Amino acid sequence: MVRLVPRETKFFGMFAEMAGNVTDGARLLLEILQDFQNVETRLQKLQEIEHRGDDLTHAIITKLNQTFITPFDREDIHRLATTLDDVLDYVHAAGERLSTYKITQRSPRATRLAELIVRQTEQIATAISKLDKHDSVLDYCVEINRLENEADSVAREAIGKLFEEEKDPIALIKMKELFEVLEMATDKAEDVANVIETVTLKSA
Amino acid sequence: MVRLVPRETKFFGMFAEMAGNVTDGARLLLEILQDFQNVETRLQKLQEIEHRGDDLTHAIITKLNQTFITPFDREDIHRLATTLDDVLDYVHAAGERLSTYKITQRSPRATRLAELIVRQTEQIATAISKLDKHDSVLDYCVEINRLENEADSVAREAIGKLFEEEKDPIALIKMKELFEVLEMATDKAEDVANVIETVTLKSA
Amino acid sequence: MVRLVPRETKFFGMFAEMAGNVTDGARLLLEILQDFQNVETRLQKLQEIEHRGDDLTHAIITKLNQTFITPFDREDIHRLATTLDDVLDYVHAAGERLSTYKITQRSPRATRLAELIVRQTEQIATAISKLDKHDSVLDYCVEINRLENEADSVAREAIGKLFEEEKDPIALIKMKELFEVLEMATDKAEDVANVIETVTLKSA
Repeated sequence: MVRLVPRETKFFGMFAEMAGNVTDGARLLLEILQDFQNVETRLQKLQEIEHRGDDLTHAIITKLNQTFITPFDREDIHRLATTLDDVLDYVHAAGERLSTYKITQRSPRATRLAELIVRQTEQIATAISKLDKHDSVLDYCVEINRLENEADSVAREAIGKLFEEEKDPIALIKMKELFEVLEMATDKAEDVANVIETVTLKSA
Repeated sequence: MVRLVPRETKFFGMFAEMAGNVTDGARLLLEILQDFQNVETRLQKLQEIEHRGDDLTHAIITKLNQTFITPFDREDIHRLATTLDDVLDYVHAAGERLSTYKITQRSPRATRLAELIVRQTEQIATAISKLDKHDSVLDYCVEINRLENEADSVAREAIGKLFEEEKDPIALIKMKELFEVLEMATDKAEDVANVIETVTLKSA
Repeated sequence: MVRLVPRETKFFGMFAEMAGNVTDGARLLLEILQDFQNVETRLQKLQEIEHRGDDLTHAIITKLNQTFITPFDREDIHRLATTLDDVLDYVHAAGERLSTYKITQRSPRATRLAELIVRQTEQIATAISKLDKHDSVLDYCVEINRLENEADSVAREAIGKLFEEEKDPIALIKMKELFEVLEMATDKAEDVANVIETVTLKSA
């Protein structure tokens, strides 16, 4: 079959690149939280990943505005790019808190939250790699939502314990915010899953 | 008149169910804040209401993605479902703060904010019940916005007083967040009113 | 050339009015932060500007819902109005913090953030004045984003210093929130720039 106006399929490759970049960022954050080695150098690297995410988002939106026939709904391309970027923004923001607040001590619950973010981004990357093949990706979306529920309860427990145990209000403010920012990253990953699910359902 | 492709009118029933569920959640939160009896049992019930809200939202969006002719604009159906769910999420989040922060004392201003949320959800439920009859719902939207303005000033006053009177920073952090989360619920109810207004104006 | 259904061009004038109003609000906030003179009277004026912003937003959305042929995409008109209003909401919220938290002391970093907001709103106003002439506005968008990056690093530094120097947790909570709210205003200005960029790219 010949199409006179071909669909622009490059979007799939761009989203795959974006999902890979988000996963890199999440893994780096996890590594930093696991050992607190060379924090400043690695945060510099995380900042570069975040900038790269901004560039990729911008490239997708520019391409979207110049493309006539898109492989899926324009509004979903826009939302997929911006929600993916939101995940990376919160991953980066969590890293920044370590530096701004001079947090230098490992927290098993913060590490646990970062692990859940890594697993969500891996699921997102796999789902995105299957989007153009019309394979079912709903299982990945269900798993991403389950991971978000788990993160929600880890964060709630972490903050509850903090209020029981931490008597220094300034130290409490710092760690509370770290937990909240990590949890926000998992919420944004759920938003990504919701967009992916919408794309799949519309094409069913 | 015979329509070959009938409009899917089930959405109105689904939204009515959703609005009823949000109202149930708001009333339960108000009751808890009024007497602090059996808090954990009732928060468990509030959690169930919140899960039900998630399920109803999901059902509406799934139906939307599978429906060709919708009774009003697709994007407005999507926004109405998600903003209604946001109201309930903040109602639930306010309840959770009582448990996480072990808040056990009545606060007249927190109770007042919960009352305003209940009144907003009742107005939303009435407006939604009239959407399919093309009755005017603008008066309800005006009232929901007025209630939000009132909540805004109650919350501002509550937080101002807290900073004047509460000398324990950790206790202050807890109550400040409770007031903020309650006020966020009223903001989200205003977002619902804005969607309802848009739907009405478009069909005028 | 005769058009049977003319495009509604009044939107450009309404957006120009809105951008002017947002700029007025940002300038007033800067003046208050510079000298802390007659704070309550000037906050009252800031509140009026904020209400006017709400009315203008509402007028644009009402007009949008009643207009058949719009000068640019409906969703972009909606987003431009709401993101402009978000900037003003955060400008107003920053002013309110001064009153609620009884902040009475000049902070060079808060003033610097307010200056950056003023410069962003001026760039926004200029870009909007050129939208209907199809002049290039991309340079303004780049500058607004650069100003946001600068604000981000001013705010991070301000908060870092605060945690180093402020030992009173309640004073710290107040100033931290002021910096955060100011920084949020610059984020929202970046959102405005993104919408303007989208409008321009689509019409290229």
